[in-house]
Amino acid sequence: MLAGHEQWYTEFEKIFELEGILKMKEITNDILAKVIRKRPADSYKGTYGRIALIGGSQNFGGAIIMASLAAVYSGAGLVTTITDPTNQTSLHDWLPEAMFVDYHDLKTAAPIIKSADVVVIGPGLGTDNNALSILTKTFELAHDKQTLVIDGSALTLIAHNHLALPEASLNILTPHQMEWQRVSGIKIADQTPEKNQAAANQLNAIVVVKSHRTEVYAAGKIYQNTGGTPAQATGGMGDTLAGLIGGFTAQFDNKTNATLAAVYTHSAIADKLAKKQYVVLPHQISEALPKFMLKNQRTN
Amino acid sequence: MLAGHEQWYTEFEKIFELEGILKMKEITNDILAKVIRKRPADSYKGTYGRIALIGGSQNFGGAIIMASLAAVYSGAGLVTTITDPTNQTSLHDWLPEAMFVDYHDLKTAAPIIKSADVVVIGPGLGTDNNALSILTKTFELAHDKQTLVIDGSALTLIAHNHLALPEASLNILTPHQMEWQRVSGIKIADQTPEKNQAAANQLNAIVVVKSHRTEVYAAGKIYQNTGGTPAQATGGMGDTLAGLIGGFTAQFDNKTNATLAAVYTHSAIADKLAKKQYVVLPHQISEALPKFMLKNQRTN
Amino acid sequence: MLAGHEQWYTEFEKIFELEGILKMKEITNDILAKVIRKRPADSYKGTYGRIALIGGSQNFGGAIIMASLAAVYSGAGLVTTITDPTNQTSLHDWLPEAMFVDYHDLKTAAPIIKSADVVVIGPGLGTDNNALSILTKTFELAHDKQTLVIDGSALTLIAHNHLALPEASLNILTPHQMEWQRVSGIKIADQTPEKNQAAANQLNAIVVVKSHRTEVYAAGKIYQNTGGTPAQATGGMGDTLAGLIGGFTAQFDNKTNATLAAVYTHSAIADKLAKKQYVVLPHQISEALPKFMLKNQRTN
Amino acid sequence: MLAGHEQWYTEFEKIFELEGILKMKEITNDILAKVIRKRPADSYKGTYGRIALIGGSQNFGGAIIMASLAAVYSGAGLVTTITDPTNQTSLHDWLPEAMFVDYHDLKTAAPIIKSADVVVIGPGLGTDNNALSILTKTFELAHDKQTLVIDGSALTLIAHNHLALPEASLNILTPHQMEWQRVSGIKIADQTPEKNQAAANQLNAIVVVKSHRTEVYAAGKIYQNTGGTPAQATGGMGDTLAGLIGGFTAQFDNKTNATLAAVYTHSAIADKLAKKQYVVLPHQISEALPKFMLKNQRTN
Repeated sequence: MLAGHEQWYTEFEKIFELEGILKMKEITNDILAKVIRKRPADSYKGTYGRIALIGGSQNFGGAIIMASLAAVYSGAGLVTTITDPTNQTSLHDWLPEAMFVDYHDLKTAAPIIKSADVVVIGPGLGTDNNALSILTKTFELAHDKQTLVIDGSALTLIAHNHLALPEASLNILTPHQMEWQRVSGIKIADQTPEKNQAAANQLNAIVVVKSHRTEVYAAGKIYQNTGGTPAQATGGMGDTLAGLIGGFTAQFDNKTNATLAAVYTHSAIADKLAKKQYVVLPHQISEALPKFMLKNQRTN
Repeated sequence: MLAGHEQWYTEFEKIFELEGILKMKEITNDILAKVIRKRPADSYKGTYGRIALIGGSQNFGGAIIMASLAAVYSGAGLVTTITDPTNQTSLHDWLPEAMFVDYHDLKTAAPIIKSADVVVIGPGLGTDNNALSILTKTFELAHDKQTLVIDGSALTLIAHNHLALPEASLNILTPHQMEWQRVSGIKIADQTPEKNQAAANQLNAIVVVKSHRTEVYAAGKIYQNTGGTPAQATGGMGDTLAGLIGGFTAQFDNKTNATLAAVYTHSAIADKLAKKQYVVLPHQISEALPKFMLKNQRTN
Repeated sequence: MLAGHEQWYTEFEKIFELEGILKMKEITNDILAKVIRKRPADSYKGTYGRIALIGGSQNFGGAIIMASLAAVYSGAGLVTTITDPTNQTSLHDWLPEAMFVDYHDLKTAAPIIKSADVVVIGPGLGTDNNALSILTKTFELAHDKQTLVIDGSALTLIAHNHLALPEASLNILTPHQMEWQRVSGIKIADQTPEKNQAAANQLNAIVVVKSHRTEVYAAGKIYQNTGGTPAQATGGMGDTLAGLIGGFTAQFDNKTNATLAAVYTHSAIADKLAKKQYVVLPHQISEALPKFMLKNQRTN
Repeated sequence: MLAGHEQWYTEFEKIFELEGILKMKEITNDILAKVIRKRPADSYKGTYGRIALIGGSQNFGGAIIMASLAAVYSGAGLVTTITDPTNQTSLHDWLPEAMFVDYHDLKTAAPIIKSADVVVIGPGLGTDNNALSILTKTFELAHDKQTLVIDGSALTLIAHNHLALPEASLNILTPHQMEWQRVSGIKIADQTPEKNQAAANQLNAIVVVKSHRTEVYAAGKIYQNTGGTPAQATGGMGDTLAGLIGGFTAQFDNKTNATLAAVYTHSAIADKLAKKQYVVLPHQISEALPKFMLKNQRTN
């Protein structure tokens, strides 16, 4: 009986796969223990990755602070935030643990970007000339030991300036649906899993399309996050997710799984906080990371 | 018997209504569940409104920060604070979730003001030329899909410069008694419900007259808040209320009810905190909003 | 028997009073309920006083922030901090409730100083020309409805420049022993109760001589505080006490009792915190004020 | 039997001492009660030492803030932070208790450095000309009543510029292994206890070589810390340790023991926090100091 059912299911799956449906896998709690390893005793801050986060114009400084919070509180070893100088003080008020670089000062920024294991670029970056310069420079510097997490304004800049993604680095794009329309050319109403996957394949990137039910396109597979709460619907949530993907990919080897675990963690913490709060603020998610991660780490 | 009593009461009410008395209705706990809806699952930050908060001169920066805190912690979707640049860092220290615009830079501010669902103007704005410019500009930009919450120095500017309220937008004024004297011309000693109502009608606005027993004049009706504690008698309480009215009107459809619920929430949280504190500070009220709102939301 | 003992005690007291001893009264817990009244229901922020706090050079900004914290958290109605502009942001990070004025801008500061019920001057003020200017100006503006709390560098400036205290205002001096030596001319080793009292009488001021066992000289009487803990021996404690005396004298009528209650409260909170902490930080005392004051307020 | 075992052990120890092994003593919990005295009742802030902390360029401001946090929260009496002026506000946001001096302003800084009981130099200092100037000046000013804690960039500057340590002061170096290579010339792979000890002897300094198992070389003895957790492997941990050694040596007489107790305390708090957190942030260790120190102080 069971065998019969299973066989039926496999047939069913095959048919829909042909049509690009049902390849969508639900991201479940299992991803956490797969990804969040118990830290090895003999390790040091370098073991947990160097991250550079680039963004935060004078108008949108909070965005890069929120992304940086997620990176530090998820356990990244060394975090440098490259942003407008008017954000230096508020960055350190939240995070004395982060280093600061003026994002106009490419001479200082370049070697830090180059030596980073992960670069998160885009939160609150804006779209002015300086933003374009540092994005272009980051793409030039990208190399094959690097993961780029490309978010927010950086995606808009790519679309408007027809920039190609760097070929050497592993690229993770984190658009919301409108940004995805800009980058992929697929209108929101037409963003089906098949079309999204085709576009992600063409970009040769992991793509996280953020929505009520965030989808992740990675290596020919499609994953759907079923967690998340309307209490999360507030400015800064996406910046926090970008920083969290940065923190996880800096620490954990399998970058697809790290991305999936970050997506899951972000909404699982929000779901928990929403049991006591009408609205969940992004910085509260970051501050909850250390306890959440310990509880959900691999135990063997 | 009961019927007789009720009839008597109705007659009684009729008589006093003629004289403009007894129309005053007590705001009760019921208003909360009427207003604070359970958030729909399929929603995003745009669902919860865009707010622009304008105020905070170099001397009064704390006022606009406190108003912004109430807006963000009450669940507004997207919050931009338009203020003096010397307040950028302290804004982000409290609220990385808020975006910042220099209030001297009308070119950047104007499209943000125009696209806002709710504009809160006045907390700590001051009365200099720049303050007058941005108030005038805000009034020019006002449109029929917009709610303006007009507080503090903005009310003084209106009185001193004989500014007319914009006709298109729904206008909510939040004066304390002296500001109300300036705007309405009614001396504090003469501020009877009848005179206040006549003035509110003439302004075609919702008017929240703040005092020991705050009164709300809206659509020909008068409401009185009976909550509140002397522990609240401290600078910044009014700024917090203005931000909270902004947050509630951005999220909830019936603007009169949203205003009443904000007035009630503000004093109900203060009453609760005052059971353990000799003085209640404004930022503590904002920080208590997410839990208070969840407990008091509509359950069906 | 008892009567006999009491008579003996009275005789004893008389003898020593002649010699200026035993007039020293211990400040006890009773002072709290005498001073901290239950707040009247029909009150507003003006009821609880306007305070201007003046101090905080670029090097000593933390001092005026700590004094302002104590003033706000003790329940003062309206607090303005007049300080170096480099302290504006950190002031608002701790206290959005406080207003800010640049202490170089006497034109803006003067009307605020004049309209204040209480002026606290000195914490971190420094001794440069600007410090002397604003101190002199404050003394010029002092009037008979005003209390001045004179602390820290202001005391040094008085001594070095032979400034006379203003005659109109009630003046409360809060020196540590070295500052008291500068102001009174009495060397630390010679600071006996009798000499201190004579000097306080001559100054016609309430004098709080801070030490291991703080003494208060007021209206011909001497009071000694027996609370306090070595866990308090850290920079900023005196600034906090000055702000707290400001907060209490702004709210409570009997200024001697308000001063005594502030001295007692400051050490009583420290004693309580020291049961769990090796060192007690000044800002922790301020943050504990609202709960402490509610517990110890007058109940009838 | 026991006597026989002990004799054997002593022989064993002698043999290995000849070869420079087994001199390494484990730092245990006993060090805490040896060092952390119960505070004497009759004491004041001067009793607990004056510390100057020098560091924090525009890029690395968080480092000196974290070091200062540890100094203040461990109970140092008077703390001055000498740093880049862009760090003034974030310093006071974390620590109103600390005084601020611009590290370009040697005229103001010099007397403060000279009068300090302990100078911590290096966290986030950087290696530019100004950094070299203030390091050289600090070495010139050093005297025999002073302890210098030399950390981070200061160690790099010493190595690159072949600076001699001051002869008068007690010098405590806190390198990680790469910095120790720079200062001692011993490559990381060759850093055996014997070679390290020889180098420490030649420098006539206490040397804390930070690693997975931190070692302390002091007065011909070698101590090893066995606590610590990989949850600590994050930027800023070393800065916090430097500030903590500063705080302990400012308060406690035996400088070797104070250093050992600081090393032990730093990892013991981290171990405790790591029971609930996947990553432990440096500022969390500092904030836990007052309770930890009270629990572990000497009881008689």
